Parts: sequence; structure tokens; C-alpha cells
Amino acid sequence: MLQHITGKTQTGFEWIDIYEPSEQELKQIIKKYDLHPALVNDCLQPDHLPKYERMPTYSFIIFRIHTEDDMPEADKVQQMTHKIAIFYSDQFIITIHRKKQRFLDHLISMVQADKCNDSQELLNILINDCLNTYEAPLAKLSKAVDYFEEVVFLRPKKVPLLKGLYYLKRKIDLIRRMLILSFEIIDALDADPGNVNTRDTRDHYVKLQNMLDSLAENIHQLLNIYFSASSQRTNDTMRILTIFSVFFMPLTFIVGIYGMNFEFMPELKWKLGYPGVMLLMAVVTLFIYLWFKRKNWL
Amino acid sequence: MLQHITGKTQTGFEWIDIYEPSEQELKQIIKKYDLHPALVNDCLQPDHLPKYERMPTYSFIIFRIHTEDDMPEADKVQQMTHKIAIFYSDQFIITIHRKKQRFLDHLISMVQADKCNDSQELLNILINDCLNTYEAPLAKLSKAVDYFEEVVFLRPKKVPLLKGLYYLKRKIDLIRRMLILSFEIIDALDADPGNVNTRDTRDHYVKLQNMLDSLAENIHQLLNIYFSASSQRTNDTMRILTIFSVFFMPLTFIVGIYGMNFEFMPELKWKLGYPGVMLLMAVVTLFIYLWFKRKNWL
Amino acid sequence: MLQHITGKTQTGFEWIDIYEPSEQELKQIIKKYDLHPALVNDCLQPDHLPKYERMPTYSFIIFRIHTEDDMPEADKVQQMTHKIAIFYSDQFIITIHRKKQRFLDHLISMVQADKCNDSQELLNILINDCLNTYEAPLAKLSKAVDYFEEVVFLRPKKVPLLKGLYYLKRKIDLIRRMLILSFEIIDALDADPGNVNTRDTRDHYVKLQNMLDSLAENIHQLLNIYFSASSQRTNDTMRILTIFSVFFMPLTFIVGIYGMNFEFMPELKWKLGYPGVMLLMAVVTLFIYLWFKRKNWL
Amino acid sequence: MLQHITGKTQTGFEWIDIYEPSEQELKQIIKKYDLHPALVNDCLQPDHLPKYERMPTYSFIIFRIHTEDDMPEADKVQQMTHKIAIFYSDQFIITIHRKKQRFLDHLISMVQADKCNDSQELLNILINDCLNTYEAPLAKLSKAVDYFEEVVFLRPKKVPLLKGLYYLKRKIDLIRRMLILSFEIIDALDADPGNVNTRDTRDHYVKLQNMLDSLAENIHQLLNIYFSASSQRTNDTMRILTIFSVFFMPLTFIVGIYGMNFEFMPELKWKLGYPGVMLLMAVVTLFIYLWFKRKNWL
Amino acid sequence: MLQHITGKTQTGFEWIDIYEPSEQELKQIIKKYDLHPALVNDCLQPDHLPKYERMPTYSFIIFRIHTEDDMPEADKVQQMTHKIAIFYSDQFIITIHRKKQRFLDHLISMVQADKCNDSQELLNILINDCLNTYEAPLAKLSKAVDYFEEVVFLRPKKVPLLKGLYYLKRKIDLIRRMLILSFEIIDALDADPGNVNTRDTRDHYVKLQNMLDSLAENIHQLLNIYFSASSQRTNDTMRILTIFSVFFMPLTFIVGIYGMNFEFMPELKWKLGYPGVMLLMAVVTLFIYLWFKRKNWL
Repeated sequence: MLQHITGKTQTGFEWIDIYEPSEQELKQIIKKYDLHPALVNDCLQPDHLPKYERMPTYSFIIFRIHTEDDMPEADKVQQMTHKIAIFYSDQFIITIHRKKQRFLDHLISMVQADKCNDSQELLNILINDCLNTYEAPLAKLSKAVDYFEEVVFLRPKKVPLLKGLYYLKRKIDLIRRMLILSFEIIDALDADPGNVNTRDTRDHYVKLQNMLDSLAENIHQLLNIYFSASSQRTNDTMRILTIFSVFFMPLTFIVGIYGMNFEFMPELKWKLGYPGVMLLMAVVTLFIYLWFKRKNWL
Repeated sequence: MLQHITGKTQTGFEWIDIYEPSEQELKQIIKKYDLHPALVNDCLQPDHLPKYERMPTYSFIIFRIHTEDDMPEADKVQQMTHKIAIFYSDQFIITIHRKKQRFLDHLISMVQADKCNDSQELLNILINDCLNTYEAPLAKLSKAVDYFEEVVFLRPKKVPLLKGLYYLKRKIDLIRRMLILSFEIIDALDADPGNVNTRDTRDHYVKLQNMLDSLAENIHQLLNIYFSASSQRTNDTMRILTIFSVFFMPLTFIVGIYGMNFEFMPELKWKLGYPGVMLLMAVVTLFIYLWFKRKNWL
Repeated sequence: MLQHITGKTQTGFEWIDIYEPSEQELKQIIKKYDLHPALVNDCLQPDHLPKYERMPTYSFIIFRIHTEDDMPEADKVQQMTHKIAIFYSDQFIITIHRKKQRFLDHLISMVQADKCNDSQELLNILINDCLNTYEAPLAKLSKAVDYFEEVVFLRPKKVPLLKGLYYLKRKIDLIRRMLILSFEIIDALDADPGNVNTRDTRDHYVKLQNMLDSLAENIHQLLNIYFSASSQRTNDTMRILTIFSVFFMPLTFIVGIYGMNFEFMPELKWKLGYPGVMLLMAVVTLFIYLWFKRKNWL
Repeated sequence: MLQHITGKTQTGFEWIDIYEPSEQELKQIIKKYDLHPALVNDCLQPDHLPKYERMPTYSFIIFRIHTEDDMPEADKVQQMTHKIAIFYSDQFIITIHRKKQRFLDHLISMVQADKCNDSQELLNILINDCLNTYEAPLAKLSKAVDYFEEVVFLRPKKVPLLKGLYYLKRKIDLIRRMLILSFEIIDALDADPGNVNTRDTRDHYVKLQNMLDSLAENIHQLLNIYFSASSQRTNDTMRILTIFSVFFMPLTFIVGIYGMNFEFMPELKWKLGYPGVMLLMAVVTLFIYLWFKRKNWL
Repeated sequence: MLQHITGKTQTGFEWIDIYEPSEQELKQIIKKYDLHPALVNDCLQPDHLPKYERMPTYSFIIFRIHTEDDMPEADKVQQMTHKIAIFYSDQFIITIHRKKQRFLDHLISMVQADKCNDSQELLNILINDCLNTYEAPLAKLSKAVDYFEEVVFLRPKKVPLLKGLYYLKRKIDLIRRMLILSFEIIDALDADPGNVNTRDTRDHYVKLQNMLDSLAENIHQLLNIYFSASSQRTNDTMRILTIFSVFFMPLTFIVGIYGMNFEFMPELKWKLGYPGVMLLMAVVTLFIYLWFKRKNWL
């Protein structure tokens, strides 16, 4: 679907937004604006990574924005992010994406209300809005990390956390990679040191990166603690099981003694032999119990 | 409660402090100073994170200060910090917060004694005082980390430390996050490189951050050491329990031999068979004991 | 094989490309361009590491490019990378390598189409193309790390992963080392701060380095998680095995009791002694089962 | 004890050194030099942390120097460091400390020999000498870390190292914290970028910090290795103990078989039944031994 | 042995090289060049650490170069490095060392061939050559790390690696420390930002440091992996040993049942009792075997 949002007479530059692009629309665009077919082809690959290319008369940007419908087990670039391709020059901005993107509506109405002076300014706001799509998912991931941290530390139930931790780690790593790959775009956008607005976009980008670095560090520590805490619990169980065994070791030995078939074992003929041995074993058990208590093993 | 602390005639700028803000007071403020209603709305969200927004005629700051009554198991933003919202321009400063904040009293008396020349200076002192609220809790956390370190290393009692370590880690992480999110505020405040006072505020901020980085590293190391030390102790216990078992293994085997029902077992008829076997087992036990001693396992 | 690709009259500089260099060709080159024999000797060592040497009238570069045929168990410099030696001055560029390199063809046709103005520009494109040979292998390594991560976290089969992880780690480390050693070359190439093209090459280099740092960190974390997850699974197995043993401990003790040979053991004469003991043991087993269930060990 | 070391007529500034300060001396000083009583009060707190305060007419510094008598189990700020308070202006330097400090003697004689031109220069030498007090303890800590490293790696005796490692870690962390807190002092001292002498002091400070960072990293790694090596040794012991048990498992089972009371067990009546079983068990034991040998478990 | 290598008339500066210095030679030097006796004394201490001291008329440098004969178990400063002391001014360079150093020969012949214009240039080449002595040992250490990595990952033989890893770690740490301590020397040498030659020396120094940082990180990771891999192997052994035990648990219990002495145990009188029980035990064993197989524990 091709949409002429603004024209030269209105704002001094054209903005064409295309979603669900048809073959024909793309061909028409290539011809009209003299775009490189290979770049337009990049627009059609759904899993193309972020990219910045300077051409003689225009620049080409692929940005990946975070999807709005966040599946808990998404761990592929395509599942978590959508591609938006931008052709950009002083004269025009062409945005190509597969689905209608809600966050563009705000921008469209702004441009149509004539609040945008040139294409550079529009591009800056556009990129800033793209970065904004990461804010909500990041806040959600941050909360998820907090939740898992609480579970790992305080609730020693046998919940299978590993899968959840995996998807959390993957998502954080994947978003982080997208941002690192987008650095060139931000860097090219904010090439002029005097521009306050693009500077703000860079600050926004840096803030997102800091949050992701901190999240990545947290999830890494959390995984370590998860394994340590889980190992600690298993070890504690093993200790108690082993203690349990230790109680029966000497008892089984004692009953073994009186199971021997020697002819001359006076105890076997004693009337009180049997209850005596039972008592002996109770005493041994008590003794071991007290020893373990003193050693703080119980 | 709305308080006019200083007016234009006195100091060249107005300062209005509002606590427990009523609907009506806020409406009145919005109208009088032409504030953006969405921002004023932010003031009412108790868990809003630190934020800096530049508007055409004024700036808007949300800062979170550390609460004075520190609960040991607090681990939520709202439990540990209070929000203070600031609208700021050359002409006025409006501070909005939910509870009366003691640290403001000192500032109010200072302004009323006419020791503050412009709103920029006041803002700087205000932010500095906000940062100051973190000093005492940080010192307390630092002491707690030292205490836990001592316990983990030197006192191998079976104290349940994990919960305490969790709250410590959470608090440190949370304060750290608050500070990272406040960076924009400090950066905007100290935009002019020549100003010694705002430079001091930035130094203050950086010092707090360094302390937190160091605390975060310490608690991370401490958790590792805690798990390692705890695992070492469990392993030592397991070793001794296993050694205990090993003593009974050959003994149980020997008594098993003489529990066999073969008709032709000459030892069973010997008069000294029973005491002989008992002696044999004593020798075996001694032998194992000496072997373990030499191997340094006991 | 010696190839004159361009001459002075065409482009203002000469480019000579030599592959599978013969003794004689090299001698001829040394003589004609007055090269240092020791440097030309370096060209013949197949495992020479990246190097940059400034001579009075020319510079000498050894770069290592990634091989195209990637063996899964390659872990030596020579197996993974090929050497390309470059003598370079304003007047000439001489490239020496052992095998024909496909990536040079594109460059050769470009120079022959007269699209290259001076030797400095050619060198820059050449180095950039050399860096490009690392892009595809890096993407492949990145995918391999992702795959191993998924296997380690989600598929607890007993696959022998250690070997695969080793080769992954080795390759990442080795490529990283090559890049670190190439820093001097990039730094010398991009000595003039105003040149946008060499600046792009440096950006390319920095991007590769960032990707490798991130890969190296990932594989390091992955190894830790692999060992932790593997240890967790073994521990779980041990726990269940130990629980299994614990069930038989008291049973073996009970049958031991009634295996004792005391003359006065009334139970032995009871008609219901045998079934009674069997029942007792069933009850004990049930009791232990319930205890373990409540303790969450089963 | 109050000492006038130099006066205005001699050197252009006064230096007053006070140790074991009496109430009266301090009052006299406060009055004469118009000092802030709260700051003088700070001088009397023995555990006050490093601090820098700029007052309108003078500056106030609290520095902590390393004590000369180093107790092995010192782990408190007060046990390891002494406080030295400095009031400083163009006109005077006042140093206040509890005990006589030997390192000051050198400085006093230097000033009295008229080798110091102004108070700024004196302050710089003083701070430099304060930093110097850390050199020897750091060298000692570095040697201790080396020693512990050797013990952990090469001498697997069961020495209780944990306590020693704790005090080492504590001391390193504490000195590190002191230095971090002293940063403001060094930064204020070296405010003028052209001054070579204060630059040297800063270099000195930075060198100490680098050494401490490296020590802190070493002790952190050493703790990890200590726990890993200790765990490895315990595991090896456990393995051998378990192997020991495994030898007796089948033997005890075999003697159990012939302890059964079936009427029709032909072996029980065989003349060679008993020696035959003994031989069988010897064979089983040998078989297990060879199996373990081949598996490399012995 | 005192050697006048060059004089003022030849090169504008004197170079005196002393090896195996005698008391008398040193006294003579002190007197002639007015050197500080304490510094000359430093020359005689074989384990003096790197040092830089600026004196009013000359500078004093202690550098430590790597020894040529590398013992595998060297881990002391003195075993691994030799001291070279340098007194340096515009007028003279005096080098003092204990043994004849081969790497100086090249320098001596260069100076004598009149290729060195001033003492500053000579000092720079000298320091660069000193740094060069670390190149070969570093390459060797790097190969050793690679070798150990391969052994740890791929060859699970029970080789005692810990000792080898210790000496590797020690050497890397020690060289790293030497370089850190030499920073002042390099920094003083390269004080003038315009000098390309000293800049090269600094680059050389930085490259060595990067290589050492990377080696130190590698050996640290390798130690972790070594302990993890070793622990994994022990755990696997323990699992199999425990499984072995588990097979005998129910069997021993069953034979225990028929070892009981109840009068009324009908099975004991059955003709097929004995073979029946044997069969039962075979079935139990098979059942356990299949269960373990399905659980993937075998």
C-alpha cells in the first residue's frame, strides 16, 4: 500500500510510506527516485539486520523496531523485531515496511499538521520513535529479571526455571545485538555536533544501551546464582540422605554379628540377648544423633 | 498543602512547594504557570522513575530521594525511595511531593534568609540535597556488606544468609538503577562547563556512582564466595559421612561371611572363632584408620 | 604467477599481483623496486602473523584474510587464514599471496575500469575487502554460538558438546587475535584524520572487533553455563540414585534383625511373623515415600 | 601537644602541628584562625573517613595514613589507618593527629631548613608523604598474595587458608576504599594543570590505585581458585572412598546368598563350597579392579 | 667491566656501559658524573623493581629485561628478568648491568657506526630493545596457553596440569606487573607529543600490554575451565559408581529376606525356592537396567 503523506509544495520534501509493498509499487519507486535495485531488494528480506549505506544522492537505512505482540518464547530476530527500510535525501523520505506500524500514525499527523521543517528533522524523529519501541519491552524484561531473581533467592520450590531464564537471556542478547548493529545509523544521523535534536536521539540510544548492558550483566549473574542456589539445595538434600544412611550402617553391622553361625557365641543363648541387642542399637542410634547434633549436621 | 516560600520581589523568582497535593491545587498551578497536564499527572504516579524533560518555557524533573525509614526487607522502588517532582524556569521553581520532606526545611530557611540569588542556584542545591539522602543508606549498606563478608568467611554456623544477601543485592541494584536514570538530570543541570557549583553536584553524583559500582561488585563477589564456602562445608561433611560408611563396609562383609550356611566351615566350630573374628574386625578398623590418617582424610 | 594489473600511464601507479610466487619472480621484484630481502622472505612464511613496517621509501603490510573453505575442526592460524603481503608506496602496490584469491578479482576489474585514482585509495579498498573476508565466518560463528546455547539450555540430552565448544572458542579467539595484531595496519592506514574513506575502514575494523568481543564474552558465558547445567543434571541423577538407596537401608536392617541367631526371639516362632515383617517393611517404605514427597525430594 | 614549626617571618606562612590535642589547644586554634568548630570536631573522631571541604577562607582535609604497626588480623579502618586532619590556606597550615607520626619529622626538618617556599608546596609534599605510607604495606600484601597463591596451587596440605585469605581481602578492599575516598583531595590539590609537582602526586596516587586494582583482582581470582582446588581435592577423596565401597557391594551380596536358609541349596552341602565362594569373591574383586584400572579411576 | 663506547667528540654525548660492576668502577662513575650514591646503590640490588627518578641534572631508570634462558619453573622476579640501570642526561648515558647482554651488541655497533645523533635517540632505541626482550617469551607463553587449552578440553587423561597452569599464570602475572611498573619510564620517555620515534616505543609498550591482558584473561578462563572439566569428569565417575551400587541394593535386600530365621516361611521349603529367588533377582537387575537406560543414566 503506497501512501503520499506529504509533497514538496507543502513541506519542501516528499514522504512516501509503503506497507505490504507490491512488486509494482517498488518498481515504480525505483524508477521515480532512481534507487539501487539491490537495496530495494534488501527491503523484502524479512530477517535483514540493521544497516546503513551512503549512496551518492541518498542514504539507505534498515532499522529493526521491536514488535508490539511479544510472545514469551520468541527468540529469533524476526519473531521479536520488524524491519523498517528508509530511503532518505534532502528531497524525499521513503519508508517501506511489511505491516502497518501504529507508531507511524503519530508522525504522519505531525507532518500533515506542518510541524516538520525538513527531511532531516523528520528522519531524526522517526529514528527516535523507532528507538522508543524498545522502551516498553525493556521495562518488561527488567521486571522479569527482578521476578526471576526473587524466585531464585527466596522460593526454593522445584520450578523449572532454566527455560524461562534462557528466553530472558536470549531476548536481552538479541535486542542488545540489534542496538550494536544500529550504531552506524545513529552515528551517521548525529554527524553534525551542533544539532541538539540528533544529540538527544544519540542520548536516547546510549541510555538504551546502558540499560541493556546492565540487564545483560544482571541475567548473567542471575544464571550463576540460579545454578549455585540449585546446587546448594541438591547438596543439602544429599547431606541429609547420607546422614540417613549413616544411621543404618552400624545397626546393620550389629545385626550381622549376631547372624553369624559360630557354635560358641554365648550371647546367643542368653535370655536377654535379643532385647539387649535391641537396646544396644537404640543407644548407638542416640549416640550418633547427639554427635551429629553437636557437629551441626542435623 | 501549597506553600509560597519566596516571591519575585524578594529573590527574583518564585518557589512554591506542594505536599500532599489536592486536585484543586494542581489545577490552579497548571493554570497559573501554564504547565503541561500530562507532566503534572506524572507527579501523581507514586512509582514514576527519574526523568528529565525540556519544555519550551520550563523544564520538568522527577527525582527519587531515598526514604528515611529504611525497612530491612524493602525491595521495591516505592518502598525505598520517594518521588519529588520539580518544575523549573528562570521565573519559578515548583516542587511537588507526597510527604513533607525534612531535608527541604534547611533549604527553605536558607532561601528565606535571602542566601539564594537565582532559581538555577536553588535547583542546584536542591538536587545536591536530594543526592545527599543516599549517603547515609549507602554507608549502612556498605557496613552490612562488611558484616556479611565476615560471617561468610569466619563464622561457619548454619545461619540462613541467602535472604539477607538477597535484600542487600536488591537494594544496591535498585539505588544504582535510580542513579543511572538520574544521569540526564545531572547532565542537564551541569550543562555549562564554567559553573563550579553544578560541577560539585556532578562530582557528588559521580562519587555516589563509584561507591555503588564498588558495592555492586562486592556483593556479587560475596554471593559467589558464600555459595563456594557453603558448598565447601557441605562437601567436608559429606567426606566425613562417607568415611564413616567406609569403616563399616568391610566389617559388614566379614560378619556376612560367617553368616553363610555352608556345612563345612571349620572356623564355625572353633572355640576361638567368635572372639577371633571380633579381633580381626578390630584390626581391619585400625588398619583403615591408619590409612585414612596417612592420606590426610581424617 | 606475476600479473601487471595497471601501469603508471593508466592510473599514475603500478599494481603488480603475484600468486604462487616463484623464486625468480621475487628476485626480479626485489631488484626492480629495491625491496628489503628480509621482508620478501616474510612473504614466504605461511604462518607469519599480521605486521606493519614503515621503510624509508615504502611500507610493508602482512594481512591475514579468512579462508573460504572453513573446516569445522580448524584451529591453527594457517588452517583458518591466508596471508597476503603488500608492498606499498605512492608509486606502486605489490600484492603477494600463495593462492589465487577470488575477492581480488572485483578489485582488479575496478582498477582496470579506471575507477581508482591513487595507490592510497586502492590500498584502502584492498584492506577493507580483506576485513570483509571475516564477515561471513563471523556470522556463521555467531549462529553456532546461538545453536549451542539453545542445546545447552533446552535439550538435556547427553551430547558430547565439549569438543564443539572448544573449536568454537578457539576460532573466536584466533580471529580476535588476528584483528588485534592488525590494529597497527589500520592505524597507519587511517593516519590522516580528514579522510572519510579510511575512516570507514577503521569503523569497519572497530565493528568487527565489537562483534568479536561480544562473541568471546558469549562463548565464555556459554562454557560456564554448559558446565553448570551439566553439573546440575549429574547432581539430580545422584540425588535420585541416593534416594533409591535410602529406601533399602532400613529394609535391609529389618531383615538383618530376623536373621540373628538368638535362641530366644519369640517373633521367629509366631505363625504370622514372616507376613508381619513383610507388612512392616511395606509400611516403612510407604512412610519414607511420604516423607520424601513432603520434603519435595521426589 | 602544640608545636609552632614555622612562622610567617621565616617562610611566609605558619605551620602548627598538634598531636594528642587537648580541648584547650583546639579552642585556642579555633579562635585564632577562625576555624569552623564542626570541622575541628571531625578531627576528634578517630574513624572519620577521608574528606575534603572548601571553606571561604581555608580548606579542610582529612587524610588517613597507613599505620606502621601492622597487625595480621586488623580489618577495621581504625586498626589499619590513622587520621591526619589538615587546615590549610595561603597563610597557615595546621596539622592535627593523635599520635606522633614519624614521617612528619623529615618534613619538619625540611621546612626548618627553609627549603619550602609556600604552604601549597608544603601541602603537596605532605600529601605525597601520606600516600607513601601505603607503599610498604602494599608491597607486603602483594607478597602475601603471591605466597597464598603458591600454597593454594602447589601444596595441597589441609591448611585452614580461608581465614588468612579473608584478612588479605579485607585489607586490600579497605585500603582501596580509603584511596577512592581520597580522590577529591588529590583532585583539589592538582587543580592547576601546569604544576609539575602536584602532577607527580597525582601520578603517585594513580599508581597506587592501579596496584590496588590489580591486587583486588588477584585476590578475587585466588579465592575462586582456592575454592575450586579445595573442591577438586574433596571430590578426589570422595571418588576413592566410593570406589572402596564399590568393591564390597558385590561381595556382601554373594555372602548374603549363602546366608539364605533354603532347604534345597546344593552348594551348601559341597565340601568345597566355602573355599569355592571365597575364590569366587577373589575373582570378582580382581575383575572390578581391572575394570577400574582400564577406566582410569584408580 | 667498564667500557667507553662513544665519547663527546664523536657523537656529542658519552656512553659508558658497565657490566659486572666493581666497587671501584662505581665509585669512579659517581665521582665523575656527580651521581647520587643511593641510586647507584639501587643498581646493586638484583631484585629492584622498575623505577624512574628525575634528578636535577640527570634521570635515573631501572628497567627489567626478560632473561634469555627461560627455566620452566621460574616464578621469581630475579629468575625471570635481569635488571638494567640507566643514568641519562643530554651529555651522557651510563648503562649498568650484571651480565653481558647480547641485545646491547647491536646497539653498540650502531652507535659506533655513528648512526645515532643524540642521547635521547639512543635511550629510545635502548628502551625499545629492552621491550623487545619480552616478545619471544610472550609468544612462547601464548603457545603454552594454547597447548594447555587443547589438553584441558580434548584430552581427558589424568595428567597433573595444575602445576603447569600455576607456573604459566605466575609468569604471565609477573611480566604484566613488570610492564605496569615500567609505565612511568615509557611515559617520561614519550613526554614530547611530536616525536614519532618515542611514539613508536609507546605503541610497542601498549601492544605488549594488550597481549598480556589478553593472555591473563585466557589463563584465568582456562583455570576455570580446567576445574570445571575436572569436576565434570569426577562427577561422571561418581555417577557410574553410584549406579553400580544401586544395582546391588535390592539384591542384597532380597537375599536378606531369605536369610531370616522365621519358622514359618513356606518358600524356604520349596524345591524351586533357591533357583526361583535367583531368577527373581535377575529380573530385578534387568528391570533396573532398563529403567536407567530409559532415564539416560547409562
